[in-house]
Amino acid sequence: MSDAPDFDGLSCPAPLAGHDTVQLAHGAGGRLSAELIDAHVLPRFRNDLLAKLEDQAVFTLPPGRVAFSTDTFVVTPLEFPGGDIGDLAVNGTVNDVAMSGARPLYLSVGLVLEEGLPLALLDRILGSMERAAHAAGVSVVTGDTKVVDRGSCDGMFVNTSGIGVVPDGVALSAASLRPGDAVLLSGTIADHGMAVMSVREGLSFRSTIQSDTAALGGLVADLLAAAPGLRALRDPTRGGLATTLNEFAHASRVGIRVEDGAVPVRDDTAAA
Amino acid sequence: MSDAPDFDGLSCPAPLAGHDTVQLAHGAGGRLSAELIDAHVLPRFRNDLLAKLEDQAVFTLPPGRVAFSTDTFVVTPLEFPGGDIGDLAVNGTVNDVAMSGARPLYLSVGLVLEEGLPLALLDRILGSMERAAHAAGVSVVTGDTKVVDRGSCDGMFVNTSGIGVVPDGVALSAASLRPGDAVLLSGTIADHGMAVMSVREGLSFRSTIQSDTAALGGLVADLLAAAPGLRALRDPTRGGLATTLNEFAHASRVGIRVEDGAVPVRDDTAAA
Repeated sequence: MSDAPDFDGLSCPAPLAGHDTVQLAHGAGGRLSAELIDAHVLPRFRNDLLAKLEDQAVFTLPPGRVAFSTDTFVVTPLEFPGGDIGDLAVNGTVNDVAMSGARPLYLSVGLVLEEGLPLALLDRILGSMERAAHAAGVSVVTGDTKVVDRGSCDGMFVNTSGIGVVPDGVALSAASLRPGDAVLLSGTIADHGMAVMSVREGLSFRSTIQSDTAALGGLVADLLAAAPGLRALRDPTRGGLATTLNEFAHASRVGIRVEDGAVPVRDDTAAA
Repeated sequence: MSDAPDFDGLSCPAPLAGHDTVQLAHGAGGRLSAELIDAHVLPRFRNDLLAKLEDQAVFTLPPGRVAFSTDTFVVTPLEFPGGDIGDLAVNGTVNDVAMSGARPLYLSVGLVLEEGLPLALLDRILGSMERAAHAAGVSVVTGDTKVVDRGSCDGMFVNTSGIGVVPDGVALSAASLRPGDAVLLSGTIADHGMAVMSVREGLSFRSTIQSDTAALGGLVADLLAAAPGLRALRDPTRGGLATTLNEFAHASRVGIRVEDGAVPVRDDTAAA
């Protein structure tokens, strides 16, 4: 990674052939597409698999069952306190893979860009994806970029799909819960949702609530080592804690009792 | 598959709780999301992995290197002569996986739906995906559905990511071409692009040009058996034949001479 770009994002690639916004031709598969990929995408995710620019990545996986997940991210605004659509898209899929007990290894990235999107904003988001992938220990090995007419998408959408390998002996499932099990939360709830909403709705709070987007692969590995009897893991997103517990209860045919005061919520998040 | 829905698409699921178009709440992760998945998606792609509704699918792959590809489909109009965004999305990724010489096995599907999309149209497209996946011998094992505000996307976008396994001894690459190699085309060019454009631009032709969207996994297996010295395969999409040959020439540092009369184009496609 000696030729990796500045992690602080202080250096930006030069504008493409005089453009400082995304053009329709950037998605048409011709010369301008190649320039976009060469100048803005490849320097971020440099690895031998992606560099081949084949229409698919081919690699050998370590032994074990394969975990495969996908998620499309459509958040507005694209940048919010504590993160942006880039690290959200990397962490979201890394975590969905990790929740099976798998070690996340490889990601695909599918970008849908709106004509007119500032290239400087795209660069910030790609930089954020690069840092998130690096922190999570995953490689972006294949991708796709489409450009849609102005007004046809909300700035940009990002799909990430991820592959990981589940160690032998690990079998987590929402259907495995048994009476007597305890529910553990790894942190306060609702911070991400409230951080996004605070910007979207133009709300202002005395204390800025930050998204807690983060990759949880390391936490999962530690959990599996400390608690080999673990039944199921979930990274709650849309629907939050309530939807997750409902899905668990439904899949395992159990009831789950939640004690109101035992669910950690930051004071400022609760106030918001 | 005895409980699979009618492949002719003659039976449609009942509208959701009185809705006949996609609502924002269908993407919010709550009750209406669950109803959309249960009533419209799961009956199409019924398999044990998807039915678990975990945030990831976990499976064992046969031995061999893994091929992984992604593509987001943003075609307008969503339906066109010879196909729709659904079979296009399945075939496109199946083919990108197959072009490595791999046997395509598993797909993810990420839907971005625009508020107000008719559910009957969504059902036709999902039915088309189901038939395409069945024809290609792949299973849709994990997915994601988002709904965006009216005007935020062009009806629907579909991301598919695919996983396949490359048999030992097969190593195809755009960088493998050598002087003296021949270029083979599997059919006429430009039919798909012209079929889409004919509808988009309101053009009408005496003879309807049909998209030639199809899964090519079987063709690839036959090719590998008949021509073990095969260097590289590509399923040309955006940019067409010219871009593909340019990418091959660039990756292999060779020149490619194309004889104009030797490129097969249907008369009506050429006229259009």
